[in-house]
Amino acid sequence: MTSARPDADRPVDGCGAQRPTGGAVTVDEAERWARAAWSALAEPGDVVAGALLDALGAVEAWRWLLEAPHRPPAHLDGLGTELARGRLVRAIERWTPRAAVLAAHGWGSATPAPEVAPFVAPGTRGGPAAVHVLVPGDARWPVGLTDLGAAAPACLWVRGDPDALADGADRPRRAVALVGARAATAYGERVVADLAGGLADAGVVVTSGGAYGIDAAAHRGALVRGGRTVVVAAGGVDRAYPAGNARLVEEAVATGGAVIGEVPPGALPTRSRFLQRNRLIAALSQVTVVVEAAWRSGALSTAHHAARLARPVGAVPGPVTSMASAGCHRLLRDGVAVCVTDAAEVLELAGPAGAAAPEPGDPRGPRPLDGVGPREQRVHDALGTRRGRPLEEIARDAGLTTRETATALGLLELAGAALRDASGWRTHA
Amino acid sequence: MTSARPDADRPVDGCGAQRPTGGAVTVDEAERWARAAWSALAEPGDVVAGALLDALGAVEAWRWLLEAPHRPPAHLDGLGTELARGRLVRAIERWTPRAAVLAAHGWGSATPAPEVAPFVAPGTRGGPAAVHVLVPGDARWPVGLTDLGAAAPACLWVRGDPDALADGADRPRRAVALVGARAATAYGERVVADLAGGLADAGVVVTSGGAYGIDAAAHRGALVRGGRTVVVAAGGVDRAYPAGNARLVEEAVATGGAVIGEVPPGALPTRSRFLQRNRLIAALSQVTVVVEAAWRSGALSTAHHAARLARPVGAVPGPVTSMASAGCHRLLRDGVAVCVTDAAEVLELAGPAGAAAPEPGDPRGPRPLDGVGPREQRVHDALGTRRGRPLEEIARDAGLTTRETATALGLLELAGAALRDASGWRTHA
Repeated sequence: MTSARPDADRPVDGCGAQRPTGGAVTVDEAERWARAAWSALAEPGDVVAGALLDALGAVEAWRWLLEAPHRPPAHLDGLGTELARGRLVRAIERWTPRAAVLAAHGWGSATPAPEVAPFVAPGTRGGPAAVHVLVPGDARWPVGLTDLGAAAPACLWVRGDPDALADGADRPRRAVALVGARAATAYGERVVADLAGGLADAGVVVTSGGAYGIDAAAHRGALVRGGRTVVVAAGGVDRAYPAGNARLVEEAVATGGAVIGEVPPGALPTRSRFLQRNRLIAALSQVTVVVEAAWRSGALSTAHHAARLARPVGAVPGPVTSMASAGCHRLLRDGVAVCVTDAAEVLELAGPAGAAAPEPGDPRGPRPLDGVGPREQRVHDALGTRRGRPLEEIARDAGLTTRETATALGLLELAGAALRDASGWRTHA
Repeated sequence: MTSARPDADRPVDGCGAQRPTGGAVTVDEAERWARAAWSALAEPGDVVAGALLDALGAVEAWRWLLEAPHRPPAHLDGLGTELARGRLVRAIERWTPRAAVLAAHGWGSATPAPEVAPFVAPGTRGGPAAVHVLVPGDARWPVGLTDLGAAAPACLWVRGDPDALADGADRPRRAVALVGARAATAYGERVVADLAGGLADAGVVVTSGGAYGIDAAAHRGALVRGGRTVVVAAGGVDRAYPAGNARLVEEAVATGGAVIGEVPPGALPTRSRFLQRNRLIAALSQVTVVVEAAWRSGALSTAHHAARLARPVGAVPGPVTSMASAGCHRLLRDGVAVCVTDAAEVLELAGPAGAAAPEPGDPRGPRPLDGVGPREQRVHDALGTRRGRPLEEIARDAGLTTRETATALGLLELAGAALRDASGWRTHA
């Protein structure tokens, strides 16, 4: 997708979004609010949007999109591969109606759109509860997000301390994701609270998804010990989901933590946004630990995202008689996760404080699935790692029909991200 | 040690013990009872004795030993390496007093010694409870023992069905060791009983050490489901240790299983025999699974023996809040064991029914620590696998002084079985 330059006679250098370079870069405010508009337009994890922002910059990409319906149908001829052109055409089709509505509501100008202005206006809401919009190039942009490649969010909406997750070279901060089942047991809640407390004592930020069960116990465990915790929301940061955890979220925000989202305030958490949110938790954390998870669980998806980003993954074992630990044992058996039993072992996975994240292009770094869609991502998550899995199993785990799964597998195979062996489909890893 | 031929002008071929070749070999009865005498003379795991039996055969080795005190002191000059000669001289010193006593009691002749004759005389005790003496070359000699190299037992004393563990190519039988803590929890006993029952249903023989706790629950779990189970004893097979498990042992013997030992009936289980017994459990089983084990536990030693024999090792996880599972989690973290949660996963480790064991010399096969003593074995067990461990930690785990440990490490390093790195000592693996 990165080879597609939709407007090839326009110079790309200099007008693209600045890539984070490790130091602070002054970000153009028009670019910031154009990225905010893209975060309202494109669904989380839309790699076509990500590639377009990388290639043109958000301001230019927005302008180009609004003009697209008025260009001759053949304007993309000869650009990029046929596959990339096809995907861009379909993306324009899905973006255009929503872009028109957003533009009519003032999105995509050089200033905040009216509907989010009250959240982001300095001083209006005052103090740490105001919403910040971070974009690549900001000193506080978490460098770990860069590993997501084209799937990186257009911007981050941060309610609370925007420093909470800053992990740049100048202010190294460690974050560990503690995730798990909503239907947690008393054992799981006790263990995750202990882990979170131990991590807080070590100055580590605890990230999680703000859900009931393990997530809530993780946030609470960090707060009880005076630590910072970050809630990664699937919807807008102005609301808590579930509402029953609203007080917990406010406490996180009030104590040096934050609630972070990639869609604007007011946006609803949808099913696909929950799935994409998991990649964000993984990318924002140096280590992801699954405490309790059923055999099929969103927490496993977070773990697989972390593994794909070449981040260490831990799993807390539990009784084999408890279905709430079955997903953890599965991660251990599959070699995706290392067995961890206390905070010290989690810290060991995180490595020494201030250890630099791998630079992009570093061979230790990730190999993101460049240019594949969310459906392919889900299918990729369900692939075997050491040996192939049958189509039916993959379809079941990905929550897709076998026909959809087969199509996605074909794309992944073409992209070199899936391999067929005697027992089925697996990743190359 | 195998290079030492104490009596170099005597032809070795033809008088040595037959090595198992996969098919049935007629074993000379004099050789059988000479091996039985060696099993009374040399302590389990005495690799000097093992190498001597391999080189000369048991009959000749026994004769050579009894003549040794009458030979000129220089009779070993020029044979083998200095290290091997030194070890042989010390071995003769420790064997000679006991050999004289044994010979006086009729051991080492071509027939059973009077004190064990009642156990082994066909018909005297009748039926399956009679004691059989198996030696290498017998069709029923478990081929897995060959992997122990010079540390293989001189013979096996088997009370019960000598076929119970026959794993030769002509009668493939799978055996899985289920081992663990004496101080087991209700959770551990329930899980191991389920595993043993599932393995019994699949026709797998359950081996264990006959101790209280996990071992007893494993044997019982197999018996309850009509399976065969083998008790590997640290002392003579005529007695149950602990006595409280005597009925359990008799039931194992009466239902197609056996109790197996490598010291003669009447021999006491000593501390060092318990430690050596663990290598036997591992070598007699295709897979070793640890169900519950404290941080330091004999079951971990069995697991490490199995790993050194290149056999799959499983560990059953449990609550991280339970110290009884700490050893299992340690095995998982160290990468020694795979996480297993039910009998199907254990069977997966065992591979397909009837799968051939690797041939000796097969690159998949083991690399036994040829010619090192029990102290070095214990130090080797305590080495790191992926990264070095400090001397003090190794000494603590091996139960030796740091001085003894350092000496053993020196020997292991010379033997190419230990490697020093920045963080300490590790195996080559």
